[in-house]
Formats: sequence, C-alpha cells, structure tokens
Amino acid sequence: MSRLSIGLLGCGTVGRGFVELVERERPRLRSRYGIDLSIDAIAVRNLSKERPGVDRSLLTTSAPDVIRRTDLVVEVIGGLEPARSLIRTAIALHRDVVTANKALLAESGGDLLEVARQRGVSLGFEASVCGGIPIIGALRRGLAGDSIESLSGILNGTCNYVLSRIEEGFAFHRAVALAQENGFAEADPALDLDGHDAAQKLRILSSIAFDAPTASLEVSGIRDITVARVEAARQRGNVLRQIATALLTDGGIELTVATREIAAAHPLARVLDECNALLIRSRATGELLLTGRGAGAMPTAAALLSDVVAIARAREARDLAVA
Amino acid sequence: MSRLSIGLLGCGTVGRGFVELVERERPRLRSRYGIDLSIDAIAVRNLSKERPGVDRSLLTTSAPDVIRRTDLVVEVIGGLEPARSLIRTAIALHRDVVTANKALLAESGGDLLEVARQRGVSLGFEASVCGGIPIIGALRRGLAGDSIESLSGILNGTCNYVLSRIEEGFAFHRAVALAQENGFAEADPALDLDGHDAAQKLRILSSIAFDAPTASLEVSGIRDITVARVEAARQRGNVLRQIATALLTDGGIELTVATREIAAAHPLARVLDECNALLIRSRATGELLLTGRGAGAMPTAAALLSDVVAIARAREARDLAVA
Repeated sequence: MSRLSIGLLGCGTVGRGFVELVERERPRLRSRYGIDLSIDAIAVRNLSKERPGVDRSLLTTSAPDVIRRTDLVVEVIGGLEPARSLIRTAIALHRDVVTANKALLAESGGDLLEVARQRGVSLGFEASVCGGIPIIGALRRGLAGDSIESLSGILNGTCNYVLSRIEEGFAFHRAVALAQENGFAEADPALDLDGHDAAQKLRILSSIAFDAPTASLEVSGIRDITVARVEAARQRGNVLRQIATALLTDGGIELTVATREIAAAHPLARVLDECNALLIRSRATGELLLTGRGAGAMPTAAALLSDVVAIARAREARDLAVA
Repeated sequence: MSRLSIGLLGCGTVGRGFVELVERERPRLRSRYGIDLSIDAIAVRNLSKERPGVDRSLLTTSAPDVIRRTDLVVEVIGGLEPARSLIRTAIALHRDVVTANKALLAESGGDLLEVARQRGVSLGFEASVCGGIPIIGALRRGLAGDSIESLSGILNGTCNYVLSRIEEGFAFHRAVALAQENGFAEADPALDLDGHDAAQKLRILSSIAFDAPTASLEVSGIRDITVARVEAARQRGNVLRQIATALLTDGGIELTVATREIAAAHPLARVLDECNALLIRSRATGELLLTGRGAGAMPTAAALLSDVVAIARAREARDLAVA
C-alpha cells in the first residue's frame, strides 16, 4: 500500500466536491490500486466560512505551508494569481500538481508544463477543460500516435443549454434565467455566451493537439444568439450551436469560436442541454467524438481525482523501477 | 533523444498499417517527444509473401529472436497461440508489450496484466477493443477516480454497418455482401453478427471498468437481425442495434449482447455504418459517450502506436527518476 498525501489549494464548490469524492472513492482506490489517498491540508482564504463535509482541522490560510506538508497539490483556486505562483512554488519543491484552472492553463500552460518537465514532476490538467470528459487524455495519450488535423466542439455547456431552451420555444432572457436557476450560468452569463470561455478551452486543447503555432483566433458571440436566428435555422433544417474549431493549416493553427448554423444531422447538432462535445479529426483514426457533461462540481472533481490516481500509479511504477 | 527499438510479431493488414504509420509519424514523434522509434525486426510465418512497403531485410521466422533483439514488442498475430506464449516470453524477458489481440485479452487479459505488473513492464492493449477509439484509456485512466456503474455500446462495426444498410432498404444478404465488399466483414460474417465478437470486447472492457466478478454472460444474435424486425422497429419510431451492456449489480457484473430495439433519440441509435460507440455511466461523471471508427488497419495501427508512445514516455520519466 503506497500512501499519498494530498494538499488542497482552495475549497469552493469543486474543492468540496473533491473532498467528498476522495472520501467516497478511497476504499475502492485502496483495494484496486493499492493507493491510500489522504487530504492532509487545505488552504483557504477565510477559515470561518461554512464548508459542510470538510474537516475544519485541515484548514489553514497558508498555501505555502500546505504545499510543504504534502506530496501532491490539487489547485482549485482558479484565476491567474495567486494560483500561478503557488503552482510554480509546488513544482519548484518537486510536488506533483493537479489543477482545474482553465484560465491559468490557457494563459501559461506551455510554461508550466515546461517547468514541470524540467523538474521531473507531473502536471495534470484534465479537469481544466470540459470537466468529466477525458479530452486531455484522449489528445495527449490516446491519439499520441496519430496526426491530428482539426478539432471542432461545443465547449461551453451554459451556452448550449441556453440554445437548447430557445429551441424549445423559450425567450432568450428566460433561457438565460433557467440556466442560472439550474446553476449553469454565472450572474453575468456574458463570458459563457460571448465565446471567451470556449476560446480559453480551445487554446488549451489546441496547444496539446498540434505542434504548430497559433495563426489566428477569432471569437464572435453573444449578439448572434437570438430566437429569430434559432427559428430561421430550424426552418432550413439546421440548428444553431456555439462551435469552437481549431484547424491545422500551412500557416499555423486557425482558432475560431462562433455561433454557427449546422445541419440537424451533424454530430454536434445532437449535443443538447449543458453537454459538451469534441470532434477530433486525425489522419489515421478518422473522426472521434467525445460527449458528456462538461461542467459541475462532481464531474470536475472526478477528473481531478483521475489525474491524481494516474500520477500515484506512475510514481509507484517509478519507485518499483528504482528499487 | 531516446531510441526505442520495436519488434513486430506478425505482419498482416494491421501490421503493415503499423509499419506505414511508424514511418509517417516518426519525424513528428522525434521532434515532439524526443522519441526515436524504429521497427528493427518483424516475425512472420512466410518470408516469401508479398508485403508492399515492408523492408524484407527485417523479416525473420523466429519470433523469439525478434523479442530478444528489441526493447518493445508489438503483437499483431491475433488468436490465442502462439500469441500468448510469445507475449509471456516477452514479459519474462522484461520487454514492454503492445497488442491488438482481442481474443487473447478476453481469454487471458487478467493473467497477462498480473504477470506484467510483477515484472514491472507495461502491457498496452488499447488497439484490442474498438480500434481508434481510446476507450481503454478512458476507462483505465480518464475515469480512474470515479465508480463506473454501467457500460452500454455498439462494439461490432460490421453488424452496425449491416443494420444501417437494412435501414436504407437493402435485403439482409445484400447488406452483408456490401459489408464484405467494403472490407468490414469476414467471408463468414457470423462471428460479427451473432454477438460473439462484441462479447469478447465487452469482457475486456468490463474487466477494466469494474472490480466485481462476472455474474452472467448472455449473447443472442444473428437470427434477430431481419428486414422485418428493422421495419417493425422503424414503424414504432425505434431502431434496431446490436447492444452490448455491462451492468454492476449486487451479485456481480451482468453482461449481455443482444439486438435491441431502442428509441430513435437514444444516443446509440445515432451511431451509423461501421462506427462503434461506448456509453459509460459513472457515479460522479454521469454519462460519457465515445464514438468513432472501431476497426480498420490504420485506426488500429494508430491505437498501437499511441500505446507505444505512452510507454516510451513513461520509460523516459522512469529513467529520469533513476538518473
């Protein structure tokens, strides 16, 4: 039985989901993989906040202390700072890191991966894009032997939920209100609807899928989502979807996020509600489609924990090789 | 740059596809991962057979010799023997192994994985189930942190191709003939249509997805695929599909392969032609659907090569840890 001490940075919705999931999956991971996971310290900003299900004795306001005291750091603070500095500190101290931080990966993913490689530690970020769908693993490992030619996907679940409701006849503002009531959209849903959230995810996916530099990034957005446009599409036998595409061209990778009219028979037309999907076209494999729930605390927590398990198993294999 | 010498056991359609793919992807794998792959020996039964694109000087009839002379063995002979004995020999000699052998994995997968674990070598078998779709990776790694509750899929592309043609109005025998003309079906398509091919794949997937023992396996098949039944389903707004399911129950895993009538809106109803799909339901992640081309020389070769790359990268990480 190999023991792995986890330090958690941040304890919001996803963090609490992760605490709950580790508790629930711990016996299975012990018996199946011989890995004994334990969350030993949690860094938070406010010690007195109510956090149901979280052991208060693990809480501290010192993130560097959490990093020093544990083997592997799970970062769910989000945003650029202090997340970036803390991850850099963890890597410098030879800690493996698992993160759900989309904004940070889109901004500094290449740098962080390079620093991690130099230090010989792992940086897992499956949870940063499309929560529970193992897209990063498919691109980094599953298709490593093939040349990827294009990506095309529905990467923002809130926007897709809103479009699905408009298709059912709801007015735009009512569809957005429903998304908010169901916990999908933020108070300001603009980031979801205007394509910038999808663009961040697309940049992360594109940087893993291709070796070429980004040639262009075009994002158009929220003004294109109207009841009239959804209805006009329907009358032509089409549907409206926010589609993110990355295309390998001679000049580099062309990235686009836009609301597009696609045929009702298109694989992405059938992606409904808050689901996400990615269509990967590669030279030998052809078309591969992954569809699932792209957001939510528990799917994201599952992606974090799957990365933790993969790293724990790789550590064990390394230790066996050294022994 | 780390060099990896590959020994190929067998050189049929998939083997030649693998040789072609390694040749094509080699520069990309060198520049991206710093891995220099080289197929250095190929074991075949008949030296004089025509094999376009394969360097004759690499051929030998001695498989043990190929194993001894190389670092990693790719097995594409198929069937139980001599494939099983050769893989055991390779593992005993501390060679990593990658295989596309579905029959062998269904029969002896657990034993081989255990022997590989004891020896500290890797056994990759992504190519053994649904060729180009990284299903094994999704179950073994992508969902490692979650409890899988059920699998449900279309695992035989030939059968799905035949059903798709019957839906278009072709007679049963004509649909089978079209599958054969397009290279999907064997001269005797019974293994595809009677559910036994899907059952082998289901057993492999189930053994990875669940920790529980198999409680039952029921396979019903070929006699259920008729034009009349497809038509009757259509009139009820349904479609006929060969569905393989694995369900976790209190008594163990219940495996079933049967031609079933499913609603036209069901995610698996939209899987057409020779495509494969797997719907994975797990506790935290919910439903995840993977769809793609499940067979063919190049998608299978891509799955083999992706496993080889993953093993080469893990080796490098181990070497770095030791150094």
